[in-house]
Amino acid sequence: MASASSASLRHLLLLRPLRPARRLLCVSSSSSSSSVLTHGDSSSSSSASSVGVVELNPPRGTRDFPPEDMRLRTWLFDNFREVSRLMAFEEVDFPVLESEALFIRKAGEEITQQLYNFEDKGGRRVVLRPEITPSLARLVIKQGKSVSLPLKWFTIGQCWRYERMTRGRRREHYQWNMDIFGMPKVRAEAELLQAVVLLFQRLGITSSDVGIRLSSRKVLQAVLNMYSIPEHLFTQVCVIVDKLGKLSREDIEKELITTGLSSEAVQGIIEVLSLKSLSKLEEVLGPGVEAVSDLKKLFSFAEQYGYADWICFDASVVRGLAYYTGVVFEAFDREGELRAICGGGRYDKLLSTFGSEDVPACGFGFGDAVIVELLKEKGLLPDLSRQIDDIVFPLDEDLEEPASSVASSLRKKGRSVDLVEDKRLKWVFKHAERINASRLILVGKSEWERGMVRVKILSTREEFEVSAGELQ
Amino acid sequence: MASASSASLRHLLLLRPLRPARRLLCVSSSSSSSSVLTHGDSSSSSSASSVGVVELNPPRGTRDFPPEDMRLRTWLFDNFREVSRLMAFEEVDFPVLESEALFIRKAGEEITQQLYNFEDKGGRRVVLRPEITPSLARLVIKQGKSVSLPLKWFTIGQCWRYERMTRGRRREHYQWNMDIFGMPKVRAEAELLQAVVLLFQRLGITSSDVGIRLSSRKVLQAVLNMYSIPEHLFTQVCVIVDKLGKLSREDIEKELITTGLSSEAVQGIIEVLSLKSLSKLEEVLGPGVEAVSDLKKLFSFAEQYGYADWICFDASVVRGLAYYTGVVFEAFDREGELRAICGGGRYDKLLSTFGSEDVPACGFGFGDAVIVELLKEKGLLPDLSRQIDDIVFPLDEDLEEPASSVASSLRKKGRSVDLVEDKRLKWVFKHAERINASRLILVGKSEWERGMVRVKILSTREEFEVSAGELQ
Repeated sequence: MASASSASLRHLLLLRPLRPARRLLCVSSSSSSSSVLTHGDSSSSSSASSVGVVELNPPRGTRDFPPEDMRLRTWLFDNFREVSRLMAFEEVDFPVLESEALFIRKAGEEITQQLYNFEDKGGRRVVLRPEITPSLARLVIKQGKSVSLPLKWFTIGQCWRYERMTRGRRREHYQWNMDIFGMPKVRAEAELLQAVVLLFQRLGITSSDVGIRLSSRKVLQAVLNMYSIPEHLFTQVCVIVDKLGKLSREDIEKELITTGLSSEAVQGIIEVLSLKSLSKLEEVLGPGVEAVSDLKKLFSFAEQYGYADWICFDASVVRGLAYYTGVVFEAFDREGELRAICGGGRYDKLLSTFGSEDVPACGFGFGDAVIVELLKEKGLLPDLSRQIDDIVFPLDEDLEEPASSVASSLRKKGRSVDLVEDKRLKWVFKHAERINASRLILVGKSEWERGMVRVKILSTREEFEVSAGELQ
Repeated sequence: MASASSASLRHLLLLRPLRPARRLLCVSSSSSSSSVLTHGDSSSSSSASSVGVVELNPPRGTRDFPPEDMRLRTWLFDNFREVSRLMAFEEVDFPVLESEALFIRKAGEEITQQLYNFEDKGGRRVVLRPEITPSLARLVIKQGKSVSLPLKWFTIGQCWRYERMTRGRRREHYQWNMDIFGMPKVRAEAELLQAVVLLFQRLGITSSDVGIRLSSRKVLQAVLNMYSIPEHLFTQVCVIVDKLGKLSREDIEKELITTGLSSEAVQGIIEVLSLKSLSKLEEVLGPGVEAVSDLKKLFSFAEQYGYADWICFDASVVRGLAYYTGVVFEAFDREGELRAICGGGRYDKLLSTFGSEDVPACGFGFGDAVIVELLKEKGLLPDLSRQIDDIVFPLDEDLEEPASSVASSLRKKGRSVDLVEDKRLKWVFKHAERINASRLILVGKSEWERGMVRVKILSTREEFEVSAGELQ
């Protein structure tokens, strides 16, 4: 690995040129003795996209997962899966490549403006999916009558977007989705919220760290009804007012006016969105409005489930996806420094946009990025060092065959065994510490002649001989 | 889900047209009362790629994983992971999207001719990776001196190819890869072969079902040396002779002649490739040839590990990837009906094609497709039905809140709980059977007034009352 020693050298590396021409390359002064040509520093890497140069980094905005990052991801996903199991959800999966048509929506959502789409060699418009809900809906329709409702499905998958790269923004992330199809009542939302809270609790996060804001798009629907605003503007209004906080209030008002709303209606909407109390909302909307009764019911469920301290009503929560129709929610860090940790809601009308009969549905997406930031901040990242049962080490080269049979038989007994050779004993001890090995099995000449191996318990420094056949 | 009742209707569904024009669509006669337009039958689906029509199926050649398929995949991947743990390998992962440059090789491999490549919006040539080894190599170089060799890494990931679709061929599959970097001796191959055998054994496959053919590219190298064939033709010759069995012997000979080999050399190569005995090989190549000593050592290891009955020498094994340099192997079903189950080999020179110093390396890829075919054929697919701990069912609508607290508290105790509502008791019992629930917890009015719930153990039909607080 000597050639990979300098940072600049490690950043970029050269694919042996397929053609003699080596344009766009400059020779790193420190590597003149080798055949390795690199750019001088990593900041120039964006110009290194010509044939002949291979980046050491994965494509911009994507991640490798070396072992330590992978252990963290696996730990997080295992928690997603365990909560899904507790909630009796079934796991499903979909191709990361989907037909573009599944994601074409006209409401001006950020998610559809940043599609990672392209044409395949057969001329089909395809996309690296930006979200998983449309695929879920597609499969529900495809399964048709072969499944009985309600369906409770979860999935963990990678989602993509294409946008100009700014610092720290990524083009992919993993998302845990839980979705319920076929439950019209807010029971479904109550179940999903329990899942989110159970996850937080498993990770060591408390309700003083994180809260869940919730509202219902039926609140906006009621306001639109008050001002006799036509039905077809509903989605667009939702997508616009979701940008409150990102854009200035004036810009939002302008956009709403542009869609055809009266300034009176715009003021009405913005006022309602500022409400943080359910009783105040009931006052404004009047009695018997579904938005209010849904939310009341949900808060009453929260008491029974035992997560009332996690949730609060906040009319400004609208969420940015076009297809939400009812309750919407998002989890946020109470210090207010991070983006939403997860978000979800009810989407009772999505299936008809695909030409099927509607099935009531709701779900959430929970990304792998913000939660890890939060865990870091709170000092809650677990210690995920490696853990190996045994290291088997032959003390002499001509003992490599006995070492094989020792390692092999331990593995057949279920132990994880690292078979180490051609190293010095000192290295092996260091290595044992590094990978948290429980035992070191030394295969030595004089012991092996008696059918024995030497066992060292690394935590206690205890050492003894045991017959190779009896080694457990 | 009523609209999804007819098969034709289920196959295709219509996205609400974004523009008034509805070209390429025809109205299904059976759905004239609904807004659903479909093609008449599934065979015409390939023409349904215009805007406005969404396929119910994922893109051609890709798969959805509904719950039952996902359970099978999870079971298989868990076995991959468990074997990797036994062998003390660490899991890593990479983006499914990579730079095309990583896979550009000139040897005429099938894998590089079927790249699922395209240009992203930033003008970069990217590819849905066809294999994982180049990404592994990239990360090894990137990690540089921060890791100590040898590295033992595994990954399970999706790989893609783009080719014209023929019946049953897919454009994606998942692949388990195990790779060792930094071990120059055949110990590495011996370890990998144990992993493959351990996997088969865990799945219930025996050495009468499956064998592993192995050879070394150094065999071909020795033959090329005998005929003084220039070094730079080595890779190309390997890729060509790998097609023996797919193409006719005459075509192979013609291709070899075209690269510049004498017909004498071609005959020599083809003769050696037909050898199935190591002693015969030694006779032909003469003494002291590395190919032979490597293979002898490997067979001797196999005895010690205890998998000698699984492996056999077969000089015709060359494998199709350009970068293999030494031992190559593939697992095959002994009935000879399926494609190779897995394949691998040593690739000591891959890193220098990326401009880095070489690190000895070898590994294998093990797909998710052929192994499942084999398991099916052998009747070895496991029973993977759903398994839920408890169903909680309120017998009355006004008991939904107590039901919430019962379900919630069981989940907090680690039990998987399906909370069912708005169904008849008969449906609940059927459902319990379908999902293999262990218990049914009935929340009834008179019991709840006494703080009790009714528990039914479904395997024994035993029934009793228990205080809700004491329910475990």
